Amino acid sequence: MEGFAGGALAAEVSLAGGLGFIGGTTDLAPELELAASIISKDVSFAQHTEKTFPIGVGFLTFITDIEKVLPVLGKWKPKVVWLFAAKEVRDYQTWAERIREVTNGESQIWLQLGSVAVALEVLKTARPDVIVAQGSDAGGHGFDRGAGIISLTPEMRDNMNDSGFENVPIVAAGGIADGRGVAAALTLGAEGVVMGTRFLASEEIRIPDGNYRQAILQGKDGGQYTVRSNIFDKLRGPSIWPTGYNGRAVVSTSYREFLEGVSVEDLRKRTKEAEGGSKKDYGVQGRSAVWAGAGVGLVNKVQSAREIVIEVRESAVKILELVRSRI
Amino acid sequence: MEGFAGGALAAEVSLAGGLGFIGGTTDLAPELELAASIISKDVSFAQHTEKTFPIGVGFLTFITDIEKVLPVLGKWKPKVVWLFAAKEVRDYQTWAERIREVTNGESQIWLQLGSVAVALEVLKTARPDVIVAQGSDAGGHGFDRGAGIISLTPEMRDNMNDSGFENVPIVAAGGIADGRGVAAALTLGAEGVVMGTRFLASEEIRIPDGNYRQAILQGKDGGQYTVRSNIFDKLRGPSIWPTGYNGRAVVSTSYREFLEGVSVEDLRKRTKEAEGGSKKDYGVQGRSAVWAGAGVGLVNKVQSAREIVIEVRESAVKILELVRSRI
Repeated sequence: MEGFAGGALAAEVSLAGGLGFIGGTTDLAPELELAASIISKDVSFAQHTEKTFPIGVGFLTFITDIEKVLPVLGKWKPKVVWLFAAKEVRDYQTWAERIREVTNGESQIWLQLGSVAVALEVLKTARPDVIVAQGSDAGGHGFDRGAGIISLTPEMRDNMNDSGFENVPIVAAGGIADGRGVAAALTLGAEGVVMGTRFLASEEIRIPDGNYRQAILQGKDGGQYTVRSNIFDKLRGPSIWPTGYNGRAVVSTSYREFLEGVSVEDLRKRTKEAEGGSKKDYGVQGRSAVWAGAGVGLVNKVQSAREIVIEVRESAVKILELVRSRI
Repeated sequence: MEGFAGGALAAEVSLAGGLGFIGGTTDLAPELELAASIISKDVSFAQHTEKTFPIGVGFLTFITDIEKVLPVLGKWKPKVVWLFAAKEVRDYQTWAERIREVTNGESQIWLQLGSVAVALEVLKTARPDVIVAQGSDAGGHGFDRGAGIISLTPEMRDNMNDSGFENVPIVAAGGIADGRGVAAALTLGAEGVVMGTRFLASEEIRIPDGNYRQAILQGKDGGQYTVRSNIFDKLRGPSIWPTGYNGRAVVSTSYREFLEGVSVEDLRKRTKEAEGGSKKDYGVQGRSAVWAGAGVGLVNKVQSAREIVIEVRESAVKILELVRSRI
């Protein structure tokens, strides 16, 4: 959610009882200040006495200069620092140690992973407070091979329990867009969930000009409307991503032409040409990537972040009650 | 589950209160007779007065000669006839009509699909009694593009409700291997679930000689241990599957070499050579396909089919109670 999830969205999610995240950026301070200005207006938060700031921040570790962000983390002590996409698994340990140093161990470390084996490895080295289990239905960047949360979450939970990490919670990510997905994640063994795509239809999201949001709201049949591929990272030049990652985005003209055998070079030319116009075209007929998860078909209206959090939470409880009463 | 799920497995699943299926074969009668011989020993089933036989049968419609199976269906009236992988979507209508004709409309028609749009189409034409929503975590053959059941099930449910098909149940398939998966599927809007991979570790399954079962039991990190690809269908000759399908199988030597750029022709030669030996090698180091879902990491012991059904059902109820009590 880099560039999309700023201080306003994060603040509103936290005010509604969730935990809002600011998407990875090295220009973090202005976003935290924006979040603070919103949160401080709320009486309960203005009086809050926790040692951490009630907002999370996320980083793509492979492209983030740790030296640039550590001072901000030290000053603000965000409740959670979420790390994703390390070039090497061992980098998580360095990051975790440095962050704990500057935050006096008060900021939690969350690591987003898609493999049981990697989870068991980092639990012993980086010692994260939470594992974010990212399934293959997730929008935007993720792992180019892996299971959906339906299989990933319970297998990760069992293996963590067996290895003495029964106290480390799992938060499930990927394909969850409403209360039903939340209820499902909880039964699978997650303690919480991450939602990204649903917030692309929030009022507070920073969304590119043009028809990006329209492409989200119009999405139907999410598993057909979106696809995982590494072509989306190559449309503006060589991919900067480490091996093992790709991204889920809307099936676009670029993707269709890629399937038809158009060369990456030609796709780049065509994308550059298209993006040279007054507005980028983000639709199904467009060339620019629209990152979205397989749950996009469940996202049909714009709401405030607060409404989304409250609606999803209430609906999850109702569904669990309903299903329990039926069986 | 063609070739794997015979009459003995199907009978035991039904005796345990599930609905057992015989996997697609044109030599159906002996399997139904085997199932009948087992079921008839159970007092409650011996006295059962339903018009249908309490077993389901499944067909891959693109390779099944409908004329060969219709007489058997007419004679036995299986409770459910499950259709998958039609060459053209409209073929489902022909199949459904002919089956209803020979069974006096008494056998239910289930259609296995992975797209919301296709579901809405067939509901109007073939008029299935149930939609099997197959997600991308499913083992064996499935759709080469699509969502996991975490997104697919609720979106399908919403759209079916909006189109007047609120009374047609969804059964979820793909990645479910224990009670947690069942509980999750129910909260997502499914009325039931399908399990395949879990039954590869049942006592009653017909599993190839050699280390096929070992490859299932040893599987860890299901999303890494298995992968969706169409290469598995090409190892013994050209794929016979229609466009739009591929299969999830264990990451094998064949698959790794495919990634390394070994030609399909060479892979075929090597597979033929390997399979010419006394036993096929089905392990991670093998060349023959081991079909398995992303939930394979949750399958760790051999049990009777009856034990599996009872354990999964009881565990699903417990989990729903536990999660409900926690929130």
